[in-house]
Amino acid sequence: MGEFELIARYFKRAVRPGARGVALGVGDDCALVVPAEGMQLAVTTDMLVEGRHFLSTVAPARLGHKALAVNLSDLAACGAEPIAFTLALALPRADEAFLAPFAEGLFALAEAHGVELVGGDTTAGPLNICITAFGQVPRGQALLRSGARAGDDLWVSGRLGDARMALEVFRGAVALGATEFETVREAMERPQPRVALGRALRGLATSAIDLSDGLVGDLGHLLASSNVGAVIDADALPRSTVLAAQSMALQRLCVLAGGDDYELLFTAPASSRSAVEAAARLVGVPVTRFGAINAAAGLRVVDAAGRAVESGWRGFDHFAA
Amino acid sequence: MGEFELIARYFKRAVRPGARGVALGVGDDCALVVPAEGMQLAVTTDMLVEGRHFLSTVAPARLGHKALAVNLSDLAACGAEPIAFTLALALPRADEAFLAPFAEGLFALAEAHGVELVGGDTTAGPLNICITAFGQVPRGQALLRSGARAGDDLWVSGRLGDARMALEVFRGAVALGATEFETVREAMERPQPRVALGRALRGLATSAIDLSDGLVGDLGHLLASSNVGAVIDADALPRSTVLAAQSMALQRLCVLAGGDDYELLFTAPASSRSAVEAAARLVGVPVTRFGAINAAAGLRVVDAAGRAVESGWRGFDHFAA
Repeated sequence: MGEFELIARYFKRAVRPGARGVALGVGDDCALVVPAEGMQLAVTTDMLVEGRHFLSTVAPARLGHKALAVNLSDLAACGAEPIAFTLALALPRADEAFLAPFAEGLFALAEAHGVELVGGDTTAGPLNICITAFGQVPRGQALLRSGARAGDDLWVSGRLGDARMALEVFRGAVALGATEFETVREAMERPQPRVALGRALRGLATSAIDLSDGLVGDLGHLLASSNVGAVIDADALPRSTVLAAQSMALQRLCVLAGGDDYELLFTAPASSRSAVEAAARLVGVPVTRFGAINAAAGLRVVDAAGRAVESGWRGFDHFAA
Repeated sequence: MGEFELIARYFKRAVRPGARGVALGVGDDCALVVPAEGMQLAVTTDMLVEGRHFLSTVAPARLGHKALAVNLSDLAACGAEPIAFTLALALPRADEAFLAPFAEGLFALAEAHGVELVGGDTTAGPLNICITAFGQVPRGQALLRSGARAGDDLWVSGRLGDARMALEVFRGAVALGATEFETVREAMERPQPRVALGRALRGLATSAIDLSDGLVGDLGHLLASSNVGAVIDADALPRSTVLAAQSMALQRLCVLAGGDDYELLFTAPASSRSAVEAAARLVGVPVTRFGAINAAAGLRVVDAAGRAVESGWRGFDHFAA
């Protein structure tokens, strides 16, 4: 199977009739994307490398899902409606046993969100998956990292830390029963981008970021962009029953600095609490309030009793020593 | 140097005042891109892998240039005006001796074309560069591969084959003097995307494609998309004096199946010959007429005397045996 047959067989699909925002899909030098009247185009790109963003043991279908999911999560954090994506793929060899399920997992998530694959590139090389995703958001309504204000509540969607717990099991640092392991492994390998929640938070949230490098690190980016500080309650951070059964040290590692959560962290005025809860209920995603924004810089982490929690946690950094 | 310091130091630049089409640049979950009124957004992505798209001997500044140039070449082939790009980069380590000149070469070309880096991703991993570029083109005016019609002339910009000749020197198959080698090496490592020509061809060319995999292969894509055939004169294909001094076998390999040319191949009605030549003169890029489109499928390659040229050439395929 050559390069062009590979593309034709697995990745060249006709644009769905009625697909929003796509004037020309795969097969020319460029695709043509057209946001609707009054909309801005939100753009994000993520590159996935074996051993860094996924393990060699991941099922190809889950990898296809995850590669798109992490990009849709960035669109969600901006409150954008996903439209389309491009896929650049470096593969050691043209391997059908990999490509068929990879494409299946990728397109299943794409169809669930109504997004079109509009272009790409395929090359031989060490396995590398680079997706660039496009969404649309009404002019001036994108959720940014820079809008948090003193007095705002801090919120997070879903549950944190399961992906990191799965990684610790793979590393041999923790042991779990088969059912528990499957639960946390699914969190690591099949994250669900919070697209509907992001859209529902337009006009409600003052700032937002998606959690990919661990809560403390990503919250640090949001605080720096907004030029504010925060106090957060580590015990209030939502976690699965599987994680809640582990040692407190492991729980804190996983919820505060786990990484790979792909939940939305956002701020909203205290006066909007019931509106935030109503929006979350409407889209069926749980949200949890776990802290507040301060005018003074710095992040203070406390427990349920208000005692300081050791604060050596930091976000994941690909080049940290 | 950590990941975020690396991004801040080398890749986070303020959007230029007056930059077209960019509402939000690097530093949030998404960038915001807004094509002008009545414009469609052209999108293309290319991934560069060491040993496939560049050699380990390439100067980092040239690699930065080339990674963006090959994407701008795709925009040029659509007649789009470049606006912005994202950069995803996998690096074995955070190496300043690589990153500083790489960024310098990248931004020099970006500034020459008035395009903004609006987002990206950085990770540890085998060296891999994935750029997605955005341009704008008036609705319905994009040059496509599918518009060639029987009777159209075939045109190509610039000169072909120097990049392949440089590769053959690196492979030890050909020897050149130092000056000649530097000339062809520059063609390989610092291609000049034909952006101005692409825009000038809107409304004149009936179809276009950029040459990256070798003329015969890329022309084949254009013919298939347009559902037509062609006859081309191999001796008419433009080449440098350096290449013209080589054996005819090497010349034909390089001009017909060289790869990495990043010139524009396009078609236009015979009635537009003087208009095409005037447009090319205006933007200062030579163009050469080298064949014609036929209604019947198939590609026939002949020499200046009309004799058939051995036609085993084929385009580059990353997964061909």
